[in-house]
Amino acid sequence: MTVPAEQLQEFLLQQFPQGDRFGTLLRSGDGWAEMSLEVGDEHLRPGGTVSGPTLMALADVALYAALLSRIGLVPLAVTNNLNINFLSKPVAGQPIIAYARMLRVGRTLGVGEVYLHSSGKEDPVAHATMTYSIPSR
Amino acid sequence: MTVPAEQLQEFLLQQFPQGDRFGTLLRSGDGWAEMSLEVGDEHLRPGGTVSGPTLMALADVALYAALLSRIGLVPLAVTNNLNINFLSKPVAGQPIIAYARMLRVGRTLGVGEVYLHSSGKEDPVAHATMTYSIPSR
Amino acid sequence: MTVPAEQLQEFLLQQFPQGDRFGTLLRSGDGWAEMSLEVGDEHLRPGGTVSGPTLMALADVALYAALLSRIGLVPLAVTNNLNINFLSKPVAGQPIIAYARMLRVGRTLGVGEVYLHSSGKEDPVAHATMTYSIPSR
Amino acid sequence: MTVPAEQLQEFLLQQFPQGDRFGTLLRSGDGWAEMSLEVGDEHLRPGGTVSGPTLMALADVALYAALLSRIGLVPLAVTNNLNINFLSKPVAGQPIIAYARMLRVGRTLGVGEVYLHSSGKEDPVAHATMTYSIPSR
Repeated sequence: MTVPAEQLQEFLLQQFPQGDRFGTLLRSGDGWAEMSLEVGDEHLRPGGTVSGPTLMALADVALYAALLSRIGLVPLAVTNNLNINFLSKPVAGQPIIAYARMLRVGRTLGVGEVYLHSSGKEDPVAHATMTYSIPSR
Repeated sequence: MTVPAEQLQEFLLQQFPQGDRFGTLLRSGDGWAEMSLEVGDEHLRPGGTVSGPTLMALADVALYAALLSRIGLVPLAVTNNLNINFLSKPVAGQPIIAYARMLRVGRTLGVGEVYLHSSGKEDPVAHATMTYSIPSR
Repeated sequence: MTVPAEQLQEFLLQQFPQGDRFGTLLRSGDGWAEMSLEVGDEHLRPGGTVSGPTLMALADVALYAALLSRIGLVPLAVTNNLNINFLSKPVAGQPIIAYARMLRVGRTLGVGEVYLHSSGKEDPVAHATMTYSIPSR
Repeated sequence: MTVPAEQLQEFLLQQFPQGDRFGTLLRSGDGWAEMSLEVGDEHLRPGGTVSGPTLMALADVALYAALLSRIGLVPLAVTNNLNINFLSKPVAGQPIIAYARMLRVGRTLGVGEVYLHSSGKEDPVAHATMTYSIPSR
């Protein structure tokens, strides 16, 4: 099953009422999703670069979208583990793009990875992997 | 060298102007720090529990404080890697306490761990490890 | 329930026939275990220090012992995620001691951490966290 | 600079005298390497599947090869952090293939990822990320 991108976006907005701060769904398919975050002052850390917690929150919502695109609009999947490597400084003033895809979706566990990069740049600014517990369906 | 807790707190507030949202320094010593976060609506996720990104942001600032308590008030240490395991649901309406300590502070790299728990409860809600690049001094 | 150390040791030897290479159980209790590895030539990497894979294998078996001490001698728990930070060079010619303890043991998931250090030295050479899937009992 | 695969293979064999146990270099290029491990009895765990430490050791050497293909045959790069997610059971009797590539190689730090799968199968059995300290050149 693949959830259409429009339904997925609507569900994310319901689930994360403050969530539009954490990105807009650009595209999604079976087990993957691409999101974009317009960087605002609240996302910056001293020195004017995008903060680590902002990148983690974006990775979190993007991979959640990738998981839901595969398992359906189940509200109760929870993150067990997140691992993130910060790779380079985001470009000031550019949106951050997150490309998330599932590596495996089992009956009770899901695992995926996310590449984050500044819009228009190829080199990633961060890479994250996450694992989820999926509730019984 | 150990940075007094008062100086550390002042420095954190300068560095993170929105940072008081991410906790108050309770105590600190040589290579460790304890912080508290009063949970507000902006920290919740659907279902009323504290969101993962909130816990990650608190872990991030608490371990940064622990690192600075050892190396001094150097503004340029950057996080390379964060790994977090989410363990149990935080208790609704309770502050989150973070206890952070460095496992190693070398010349160019620092590594530490953070235990997060709901105030008054012993079992941790999350555990994180982080690594930092320390600029030449 | 706590499994006596003698039963735990016997079970580990059955499960890991080559496993004595990966340490001897020194002590264990409810949700924790301490193991020791005599370092042999097969554990070294160029330069004469203990190899990363050796430290990972020791962390793996020590935390597995800690988990079993809590849940009983269940052969089917599987590792989902391992994260390890290498902190300092082990002392040549000294055994490696692993102290492992569970942070949480739920119905289907277990999470724990391991400190590895050279015998007689306080500073850890590595620190690992791991998560496990626990089969239905 | 890209190190030719033949030179890289020879260097790995010098560095890891027991290392042929941990795979044969199949191909490599600028910042990536592919290795194959013939699974022997010493790599199995109870139940007949490939052990976690075997997969970690293969990931370790494959990403080390990917790093060296970029920075040259420098013997002193050390692993700082390894994070691995175990995804599915390897196919019995099949070699394990590791595809490793660097995500970033900076002046002092390298970060990369590795996909491990059973030969002939598309779904990965594990995915790892690693960070390295690179000595001054």
